[in-house]
Amino acid sequence: MKDLNIGMVGGGFMGRTHSNAFSQVNHFFDVPYRPVLKTICGRNAERAKAFAAQWGYQSVETDWRNLVDSRDVDVIDIASPNDTHAEIAIAAAKAGKIVLCEKPLGRNPAESEAMVAAVDAAGVANMVWYNYRRVPAVTLARQLIDEGRLGRIFHYRTKFLQDWTISSDLPQGGTALWRLDASVAGSGVTGDLLAHNIDTALWLNGHINEVSAMTETFIKERKHELTGKVEPVTIDDASAFLARFRNGSLATFEATRYARGHKALYTFEINGENASIAWDLHDLHRLEYFDHRDEGRLRGWKSIHITDGDHPYMKQWWVPGLQIGYEHTFIHQAADFLEGLGDGRSVSPTFRDALLTDYVTDAVLQSAKNRQWVTVKGQ
Amino acid sequence: MKDLNIGMVGGGFMGRTHSNAFSQVNHFFDVPYRPVLKTICGRNAERAKAFAAQWGYQSVETDWRNLVDSRDVDVIDIASPNDTHAEIAIAAAKAGKIVLCEKPLGRNPAESEAMVAAVDAAGVANMVWYNYRRVPAVTLARQLIDEGRLGRIFHYRTKFLQDWTISSDLPQGGTALWRLDASVAGSGVTGDLLAHNIDTALWLNGHINEVSAMTETFIKERKHELTGKVEPVTIDDASAFLARFRNGSLATFEATRYARGHKALYTFEINGENASIAWDLHDLHRLEYFDHRDEGRLRGWKSIHITDGDHPYMKQWWVPGLQIGYEHTFIHQAADFLEGLGDGRSVSPTFRDALLTDYVTDAVLQSAKNRQWVTVKGQ
Amino acid sequence: MKDLNIGMVGGGFMGRTHSNAFSQVNHFFDVPYRPVLKTICGRNAERAKAFAAQWGYQSVETDWRNLVDSRDVDVIDIASPNDTHAEIAIAAAKAGKIVLCEKPLGRNPAESEAMVAAVDAAGVANMVWYNYRRVPAVTLARQLIDEGRLGRIFHYRTKFLQDWTISSDLPQGGTALWRLDASVAGSGVTGDLLAHNIDTALWLNGHINEVSAMTETFIKERKHELTGKVEPVTIDDASAFLARFRNGSLATFEATRYARGHKALYTFEINGENASIAWDLHDLHRLEYFDHRDEGRLRGWKSIHITDGDHPYMKQWWVPGLQIGYEHTFIHQAADFLEGLGDGRSVSPTFRDALLTDYVTDAVLQSAKNRQWVTVKGQ
Amino acid sequence: MKDLNIGMVGGGFMGRTHSNAFSQVNHFFDVPYRPVLKTICGRNAERAKAFAAQWGYQSVETDWRNLVDSRDVDVIDIASPNDTHAEIAIAAAKAGKIVLCEKPLGRNPAESEAMVAAVDAAGVANMVWYNYRRVPAVTLARQLIDEGRLGRIFHYRTKFLQDWTISSDLPQGGTALWRLDASVAGSGVTGDLLAHNIDTALWLNGHINEVSAMTETFIKERKHELTGKVEPVTIDDASAFLARFRNGSLATFEATRYARGHKALYTFEINGENASIAWDLHDLHRLEYFDHRDEGRLRGWKSIHITDGDHPYMKQWWVPGLQIGYEHTFIHQAADFLEGLGDGRSVSPTFRDALLTDYVTDAVLQSAKNRQWVTVKGQ
Repeated sequence: MKDLNIGMVGGGFMGRTHSNAFSQVNHFFDVPYRPVLKTICGRNAERAKAFAAQWGYQSVETDWRNLVDSRDVDVIDIASPNDTHAEIAIAAAKAGKIVLCEKPLGRNPAESEAMVAAVDAAGVANMVWYNYRRVPAVTLARQLIDEGRLGRIFHYRTKFLQDWTISSDLPQGGTALWRLDASVAGSGVTGDLLAHNIDTALWLNGHINEVSAMTETFIKERKHELTGKVEPVTIDDASAFLARFRNGSLATFEATRYARGHKALYTFEINGENASIAWDLHDLHRLEYFDHRDEGRLRGWKSIHITDGDHPYMKQWWVPGLQIGYEHTFIHQAADFLEGLGDGRSVSPTFRDALLTDYVTDAVLQSAKNRQWVTVKGQ
Repeated sequence: MKDLNIGMVGGGFMGRTHSNAFSQVNHFFDVPYRPVLKTICGRNAERAKAFAAQWGYQSVETDWRNLVDSRDVDVIDIASPNDTHAEIAIAAAKAGKIVLCEKPLGRNPAESEAMVAAVDAAGVANMVWYNYRRVPAVTLARQLIDEGRLGRIFHYRTKFLQDWTISSDLPQGGTALWRLDASVAGSGVTGDLLAHNIDTALWLNGHINEVSAMTETFIKERKHELTGKVEPVTIDDASAFLARFRNGSLATFEATRYARGHKALYTFEINGENASIAWDLHDLHRLEYFDHRDEGRLRGWKSIHITDGDHPYMKQWWVPGLQIGYEHTFIHQAADFLEGLGDGRSVSPTFRDALLTDYVTDAVLQSAKNRQWVTVKGQ
Repeated sequence: MKDLNIGMVGGGFMGRTHSNAFSQVNHFFDVPYRPVLKTICGRNAERAKAFAAQWGYQSVETDWRNLVDSRDVDVIDIASPNDTHAEIAIAAAKAGKIVLCEKPLGRNPAESEAMVAAVDAAGVANMVWYNYRRVPAVTLARQLIDEGRLGRIFHYRTKFLQDWTISSDLPQGGTALWRLDASVAGSGVTGDLLAHNIDTALWLNGHINEVSAMTETFIKERKHELTGKVEPVTIDDASAFLARFRNGSLATFEATRYARGHKALYTFEINGENASIAWDLHDLHRLEYFDHRDEGRLRGWKSIHITDGDHPYMKQWWVPGLQIGYEHTFIHQAADFLEGLGDGRSVSPTFRDALLTDYVTDAVLQSAKNRQWVTVKGQ
Repeated sequence: MKDLNIGMVGGGFMGRTHSNAFSQVNHFFDVPYRPVLKTICGRNAERAKAFAAQWGYQSVETDWRNLVDSRDVDVIDIASPNDTHAEIAIAAAKAGKIVLCEKPLGRNPAESEAMVAAVDAAGVANMVWYNYRRVPAVTLARQLIDEGRLGRIFHYRTKFLQDWTISSDLPQGGTALWRLDASVAGSGVTGDLLAHNIDTALWLNGHINEVSAMTETFIKERKHELTGKVEPVTIDDASAFLARFRNGSLATFEATRYARGHKALYTFEINGENASIAWDLHDLHRLEYFDHRDEGRLRGWKSIHITDGDHPYMKQWWVPGLQIGYEHTFIHQAADFLEGLGDGRSVSPTFRDALLTDYVTDAVLQSAKNRQWVTVKGQ
């Protein structure tokens, strides 16, 4: 087993999930690399040091350029705010590093295209942390679809509901709340939440041809953390769209941070000719499955408790009946990535895969602005 | 289609459910008899008249003896308090009437045995309104068991939880609250609630060999509605027992009126070698089913929405997806009874079937008193 | 209590639900009228006679004109296919009858406007059977909204999913399948299913300003029952739209008959600033409620079992914990109607209320055709 | 932060959960000690080496006596089969080590009493890994009880259902299946599963006065892994009992490995005068709560998604809505233990606490044998 030295950029929420994935992967998965937490890079030296102490990073940097230049690091993992993704990734690729990036890839397709071009030109391994593909239930959904169990697909239905920005007292911007500042985040829920829905949808159901969208900013002004002034809110608080997939199925997508009672209710449902599948992040260890080929009077939605040895990834964990949680999805993605690295395979979603999601989010934002159906740029 | 003249004794809650069953059965089921609501008999003439007006009874009686003697009546349906069941049923049988009786049959096995002897001697059709057998989901459970889908049975688990007597201000006795007076009701939750659990269990899982029980009266004294005095409470507020069935399976039974949050949570679950079944009165239109013979990674509990044309009784109702409710179980039982009457078949549960339930409740009360395992008298 | 003579047009599924409502209403509700099932009118004399025998209608007609002209009838209740609604309703109004009509009102706004004009001109009582308003859980939802418990509304989300037309072998047209023939039905799922979603939404959340819609016909050709030939399918199999309400909330609506695993999954969810509500026809006796004002660590979605005496309509039925079913919604609507009739009040939804739903469905169909946002004609 | 050197005995399922807890605790909790994975001790040197490599243990031992004698180790953590617990724990205590032990404490009260005596005599910190107390939902349940929210307790209801031993082809004994051999395990489901139910029950609801139990061995003979012969099965496959708590509440307990469809369905429900609580290991991140003091028509069971910052332990993990899993319970227990160690506080459940559970399991086994109510030895 070879060591693989990780240089992490960003020690916030996402820095924690990635660091945990690298800490845990060898405890549970038999992969050809051992990630070593080499260097954490954060703008605030104090916080970066504390993060290093907590996670066992061997050194600390405050300028990502030094990290990119460092010979001690094999992988640059970008877990900093969205407005830093493109610049760091492009530099890292040029420096010949493996590049991992938290989603979304760029703030807009132009940034993302440049990032794809950079990793392609450099020929470096790359991946984007759309972690929900590796929820075992979601992976199983993909397997069932690949096996043709659903038949012709008629409907795709997905949403991502949160409620944490309802209070008008919540400020925007700064370290904690940069997701409410479009200049940093790129957009609001479209890029933050719908990007997850779209990534999964493209993976499970193929290309989206066109969309008709609406967005809304319910709270028009908030105090900005950096300026201290009340300023217009620039992000979309809610975003919904109709879509038609290339395979002929119809879809509804919706995301919001104003759905009282839901913390992170990411759901999808797929209706095929022969079978349907539904899943929900609030009970991520379950997959709901309906098979019309079951005996007539015994047909029903089955709640599959995804904790058995024959479920994706689950043989590596505990015993049947014992559920895993959110952070395991990152461990699974790390395991797949390291496995692929050993084999010289690129592991999905790559930068190129993630760019396709950006094309959809961009079409959504355009459609909401123009009040027209918009064709999605694509493959 | 022949008319069948109904003489109803008792215009309380159960009088309503039975009257409704007779009013509705011909609207939905093709049976050889048309029940005619001939006479309602109630001790209070005013209330009996109001009941007759509401339900369309043609006449009113205040003494059940007149009803039993009446030539106009074919069926005596006993929906009055438990302490009246034996006397009326025996007289009705002697008068050659068809006799229907609300559960439980008698207040104790001695009364019930006399009732069975009377209908046997008279050779009259008879039935007890253990209505829950005719919940379509429960009937389907029986069909699945009869088809051998469960294999060897290991466990039976059932409870009936209510919470309506928790307040110590609630009085006991009288017209409304006779169920809290053991001299009228026979017992508390053992005869009122567990009798349902037991009837279903005997029907689905066969004879119970022996029981070990405990009962409790949480509120020791209550004001009595008739005397106006605070008197000792004579019923069991809660009752639970362990049991062994003849088929080798183990069981737990529990009923109470002190389970905060449950209004009428009657549930059962059966675990067999190959499959398991669960049901719940609070969502009576669903059956939960787990089949181990399903493909491994797709095994799960299926929630079958029992509203399709191939589910028991459901072809007679609406269209798939539209649920029925509580009162329909009585309509189904009436339909089966009338069908059987046309064919000269006795329809279960007969008085004799209901006596077997009384043997179990009696063993439960004995065991709770003696703190011993008690063998159930039986077939 | 006065008799009210009912003349029913149509003895299909809807004729049964209405007849049942009139048969049952006096058994459970104290209202100033007793509906008398006077005459059933059906094109097929044989079937009409059978229907009359089953439900107790005193006479049979095969031409609705005779029914409208009859002095014996006070109410014309239209439960025949959609293409007959306007003509019968207008004639009935002119004849001074009370006019009740199954939903949707007409096949298009022009028909519906003529119907409204007719009942207005005649000054006759009128009502449309949008029965789901009278599901006790839905009525309670309205009460909670009226009490201001939700605060500012951000989101409305509703769907109606079925799966009964997925097979391409299913023919279209004729007596049983006129809902698949747009010339009879007016439209497909938009008028049949979404009309329910819209009626409830207008009632709970107010006027819809504008919509962006898409529709699809998945199976393009089917054999026609009447011609025996394979013909183009004229209805929409699926219909989805985005909407903005006058109160500023955003909505997604979707209906389909191609959602495998769902028989009649009508659902809605409303997210307000302070509280959220969700409901589902497959478990119609439950209301899901989340209140942000609950103590922080004890916040959660509450599943309210709507069977208690303080829930709308439920005091009239059984005892707490015992659920009612689909047909009860029609009984409730009949009770409210008769109550209103006694008081000289018009009872909602009137023809005029139902016309507003038609304006929305019309905008949806237009938008799907034109691929534009369409402003809804309105109040 | 001081280092604390861990000597782990046993590298099976439980060795993994404990090792993971020590690896992860400092990543998420601010505690005064840093556990160092010093030595793993396993009988099979090959497997022990592999385990050490996987988890980062610095050295390997094959004889626990060497571990106990080692100066490099501060803590002896016993995760080996039950028949080794007493001997190792007693020796470790004598050697002045902190002693942690997987549940159950001993195979019977005599062993457990000796273990308690040993740690008491040595004055060493000690704890038993009854991990389910630290499921955040279970900890919250305890808080609600402590705050007096439930009022007088009437009922406690708990079960632990599995289905992994139904096949008669499954052998007994040896490394993998020692839980089926009573000479190693002490008993079957009573000590393995019910011990969890009892530990939680004693913690939440206080002392159990007396029990009436039944046990069953459904498969009477199995091939033994060590002898290769078909031998009688010595464990209890299923165990159920009635109980009365000191606080006057009644209880039912049940555990089995023959409940088809359930992998690890550990559930409990508590019914109090004012409120009820229910929990279920298959969805461990939820707590069900019913409060009778809620407004009447809005009463219902609330499903609390235990992922918020104000829920026990959850501020240390991710963001609201994101669930944790099984292994986190051990991390929480490790955190509490290290915190207590820093403060000089003993952390529950200590050996003495765990002995009380053994008194109950012992009474259960006695009662099942003697068919009598048995008084539980205790405080």
